[in-house]
Amino acid sequence: MIKILQDDEPHPAEVVNSGGMSPYVLICEHASNRIPRNLGTLGLSDEDLQRHIAWDIGAEATARILSKILDAPLILQRYSRLVYDCNRPPEADSAFPDESEIYQIPGNRNLTPSARLARTREIARPFHATIEAFLDQRAVERRQTLVASIHSFTPVYKGKERQLDVGFLFDRDAALANFLIKVFPTEKARLNEPYGPKDGVLHLLNFHAAPRGLRHVMIEIRNDLITEHAGQNAWANYLVVPLAQAAIKLASQARS
Amino acid sequence: MIKILQDDEPHPAEVVNSGGMSPYVLICEHASNRIPRNLGTLGLSDEDLQRHIAWDIGAEATARILSKILDAPLILQRYSRLVYDCNRPPEADSAFPDESEIYQIPGNRNLTPSARLARTREIARPFHATIEAFLDQRAVERRQTLVASIHSFTPVYKGKERQLDVGFLFDRDAALANFLIKVFPTEKARLNEPYGPKDGVLHLLNFHAAPRGLRHVMIEIRNDLITEHAGQNAWANYLVVPLAQAAIKLASQARS
Repeated sequence: MIKILQDDEPHPAEVVNSGGMSPYVLICEHASNRIPRNLGTLGLSDEDLQRHIAWDIGAEATARILSKILDAPLILQRYSRLVYDCNRPPEADSAFPDESEIYQIPGNRNLTPSARLARTREIARPFHATIEAFLDQRAVERRQTLVASIHSFTPVYKGKERQLDVGFLFDRDAALANFLIKVFPTEKARLNEPYGPKDGVLHLLNFHAAPRGLRHVMIEIRNDLITEHAGQNAWANYLVVPLAQAAIKLASQARS
Repeated sequence: MIKILQDDEPHPAEVVNSGGMSPYVLICEHASNRIPRNLGTLGLSDEDLQRHIAWDIGAEATARILSKILDAPLILQRYSRLVYDCNRPPEADSAFPDESEIYQIPGNRNLTPSARLARTREIARPFHATIEAFLDQRAVERRQTLVASIHSFTPVYKGKERQLDVGFLFDRDAALANFLIKVFPTEKARLNEPYGPKDGVLHLLNFHAAPRGLRHVMIEIRNDLITEHAGQNAWANYLVVPLAQAAIKLASQARS
């Protein structure tokens, strides 16, 4: 059996503020651009590994600030989505992308079933198991839980500029996204943009939140707005009140 | 920490015909009425533990015959749904029902969070993990997979007779159920009866199949039709050709 992670490399899931009292559980599955040593650089240059193809630029820092202000637990993936994209099932080619936007990923070309399985077992499943056990604990305690995943998108994709600052994405739960867009103080917020459920990007929420009947939303922020600390702090703060209001509002409604 | 299963009690998941060549993976989460020794009888009589509240009468035997004829893998839950209903998330009260139809379940009254967590960890999660690992293996091998869960329902519920022989239930994947009902040779087949997605009974498929993009269906057979071997054999045989045809038909279509 192929083994990827070495003994001194960290577990794929980092749990921040696990005792946080917020009803929100934050998830950031594209937090990191780290590649396990055994996989080298997947054939990419250091410059390419800094690009949005490897991680969601600014998402981790923004999520950490949001976690602090909301007092919400945050679960982060410690390895790059180029190793395994934890927002995709292993059935999807895009879980192990051999190209992303306009970039080729040589280290993901012609992966064998064993190589795909090793990444699934060592990178994806332990991350998902951490989320699952965390949500199970809250479930048996009958705590209110809403799940928000924090992402960022590139302002220019395949040469075309995107015309929004933030997207609230949903598939099975429209209520939370609809509430957020109503109260969010910008003209450049959109629902299910720059992509949506048909693109398969709601996988993590369809897997962890929807089957439990938990309210959820995916939040996508344009990454040039959250490259630096000031922007990260500003965007975390923009989100706090709408999220807190939504939790109160939706707690009083029966789940549809 | 509460511990439920003793060392000589079996793992919650039994995998039958794991090397079966069918594109179908069969699941029977209500196969058994077994209660772990540590939980006694949950306060029920032997007679009550034989009723449909404890298990899906006839479902296991029918699923085993279907597994053999289709040459399909079959994953069975070895403990009663009264311990943990693996077709429910731990958020649902019905995962640990303290009443079912017209029967009280004394051993499930006022469960503590620790008791709920122990059942979740020892009964539900190992069962789901077996399904997950099995589907992951097929995914990395790029095999076609359709998931069918096999259930039975009681002909009389709360004093009212039900007017169907078989139900094909779906939530996110209408295609497989729609195909089956078209070709199934009986007037008494229905879609999303005697219950459906609003009743939360599509949980297992919404959790394991839908997020992977796998075609799926829940098959509910009236239990008095499959109490004895002859009926079990007949119903398994009724299902074989429609299921096999559906797999061929749907393999050639893009997933909606």
